[in-house]
Amino acid sequence: MPPNVPPEALQLRSTVKSEGTIEVALVRAPVPHPQPNELVVRIEASPINPSDLGILFSGADVARARAGGTAELPSVSAPLAPEALRRLAARVGQAMPAGNEGAGVVVAAGSSPQAQALLGKAVGVIGGGMYSQYRCLEVSECQPLPSGTSPRQGAAWFINPVTALGMVETLRREGHRALVHTAAASNLGQMLVRLCREEKVPLVNVVRRPEQVAVLSELGATHVCDSSQPTFREKLTDAIAETGATLAFDATGGGTLVSDILAAMEAAAARSQPGFRRYGTSVHKQVYLYGSLDPGPTVLQRTYGMAWGIGGWLMWPALERFGPETTTRLRTRAAAGLTTTFASHYSKEVSLTEMLRLEEIAAYARPATGSKYLVRPNPGSS
Amino acid sequence: MPPNVPPEALQLRSTVKSEGTIEVALVRAPVPHPQPNELVVRIEASPINPSDLGILFSGADVARARAGGTAELPSVSAPLAPEALRRLAARVGQAMPAGNEGAGVVVAAGSSPQAQALLGKAVGVIGGGMYSQYRCLEVSECQPLPSGTSPRQGAAWFINPVTALGMVETLRREGHRALVHTAAASNLGQMLVRLCREEKVPLVNVVRRPEQVAVLSELGATHVCDSSQPTFREKLTDAIAETGATLAFDATGGGTLVSDILAAMEAAAARSQPGFRRYGTSVHKQVYLYGSLDPGPTVLQRTYGMAWGIGGWLMWPALERFGPETTTRLRTRAAAGLTTTFASHYSKEVSLTEMLRLEEIAAYARPATGSKYLVRPNPGSS
Repeated sequence: MPPNVPPEALQLRSTVKSEGTIEVALVRAPVPHPQPNELVVRIEASPINPSDLGILFSGADVARARAGGTAELPSVSAPLAPEALRRLAARVGQAMPAGNEGAGVVVAAGSSPQAQALLGKAVGVIGGGMYSQYRCLEVSECQPLPSGTSPRQGAAWFINPVTALGMVETLRREGHRALVHTAAASNLGQMLVRLCREEKVPLVNVVRRPEQVAVLSELGATHVCDSSQPTFREKLTDAIAETGATLAFDATGGGTLVSDILAAMEAAAARSQPGFRRYGTSVHKQVYLYGSLDPGPTVLQRTYGMAWGIGGWLMWPALERFGPETTTRLRTRAAAGLTTTFASHYSKEVSLTEMLRLEEIAAYARPATGSKYLVRPNPGSS
Repeated sequence: MPPNVPPEALQLRSTVKSEGTIEVALVRAPVPHPQPNELVVRIEASPINPSDLGILFSGADVARARAGGTAELPSVSAPLAPEALRRLAARVGQAMPAGNEGAGVVVAAGSSPQAQALLGKAVGVIGGGMYSQYRCLEVSECQPLPSGTSPRQGAAWFINPVTALGMVETLRREGHRALVHTAAASNLGQMLVRLCREEKVPLVNVVRRPEQVAVLSELGATHVCDSSQPTFREKLTDAIAETGATLAFDATGGGTLVSDILAAMEAAAARSQPGFRRYGTSVHKQVYLYGSLDPGPTVLQRTYGMAWGIGGWLMWPALERFGPETTTRLRTRAAAGLTTTFASHYSKEVSLTEMLRLEEIAAYARPATGSKYLVRPNPGSS
């Protein structure tokens, strides 16, 4: 191992305890030697995405979190509701690393030519455990960043950009021509506004607060519907009629929003298929749920005929359906757009130690769109 | 027109009135002359299916129905709730015939050889308006009944048999190997028990009352789960695990049953994919809603990972997706099985006039499985 790689380094781990708490702790873990096709990457930056919170705190009550550990190796414990503990039974006692994606610099490489070619390079990385100072990864889990893109700019290179690209890919493969997106003021939502403009895909943005309308309008979004307004359903129907959207991606999950979107799509379709149809129009309307900002039940009113579908949607299984060629195309495009289409903005940067401060947890664990943290596991790096 | 075809005959029609009632009335209507490729069929028998009630009464409050008209041409009026009236706005003032399917004897035929070949034959018919004494139909809407099958036996030749066949066809095309069916004691459900046995498709039957378990067990059903029992969810999970069912057809629509089925499928899948999976198993679980016995909202708990889909399913659009060759294969098979696999049983036979008696309406308009009426528009016929 090169002299600049320490034998062990800091890593964050999350453990479900059988007594009904979740503990997130900083530990010292050995840095592995790379196998022929592996790289050791010094992680410079890693975002906190909603999917990361799912592993870190798994629905624990962070408002009741308590600090523990030492100043050098702090920890935090938070109580889990009994039903959350049941759901997490298979995790009890396992100290799980967290942090899906990040970016850093390759500081050691295995013997294969593919690995050696990346030594010293800045790479985006995927594969979990990025809330670590060093990670040992397969070459295929590392994407060289374009010159001029720093690890800080490349930290969120994969999850949101490839999700946005996967949504547009799904739209094309399933034969839709316009898209509805909810929780549209999120980091992902802002990327989607820029991507859909480039791709000439009309986009209807649904947000939950008036100030989010302003955020998206500044980005140049054409259709922004605020679900907190009394005229929401009419405006949504008008926007859907104007764009011809028959596909939606929903991040909220619970409540009646999915049902409202299907009803608006059906009302828009009925404008071009007048007359009585006992089973509704023949226009197929599809909503994919990819998040669960509202964990309550999804309530479907079924007032939109019979030509409709809803379902879960995840980026990884979608990539599997698309196949390796499309996957390579999407991740290459994601990396190429990191300072433009797929640029991310952060409300705060924290070290691994600062990430365990109760006041920071209270801020980044809140399920609100528009506030996003960046973790810098090696403070002082670029 | 041959002398045995009257110039006009009785027909039932349903009209939505702008003042908020629905009127079902017997009228005299002219019997059309057949065009070259048309047939005039004397309708001998037509079932009252749930889809027919949707046109006849459209959710009106039949408990508050009132009789009108004359002894010879009776009518019935029932009030519509304001939201039902809104939904039916496009129907106001139109006197719609009803009765999707039936069977009868060809009494007049157009000049084409295809039409002439069917003169005097017993045929199953489809195309609406079968609560009539005579119907003029395209040759393609008529299916010769096998010799030995009477019009009475052939009355329900299409809707339920082709729906059952379409469900099994969907299962094969979408790559599932076993099926869950709800409201399984229905006429359709009993056909499905026999069809799935012939097709070697394992079937999990979900019923709502203990006496329905007995009905299906007598038919030889292997898996029957009663949702009124406290052990329902465990039994459903066991049956799904045993059969490997990942597809369900649901006729109830409202409530949590759809969600319960998806949760049972996920629990069954987790038995063969142990360990913690944040987004659930990778087994895709699909539920199609083809009915709405419970008109309340569908409540999805989303406790079954992300690999799931639900959607509306109708036989007609399914046949369109299957294409004309498959459609011909399915309807030929339906007709061939009318005295065996697809035999229907009726709790009562009524004339068109008797169909408008308030006590009969109260019986056949009740959304309960297992009680089915047969209409005989030409009393005294075979």
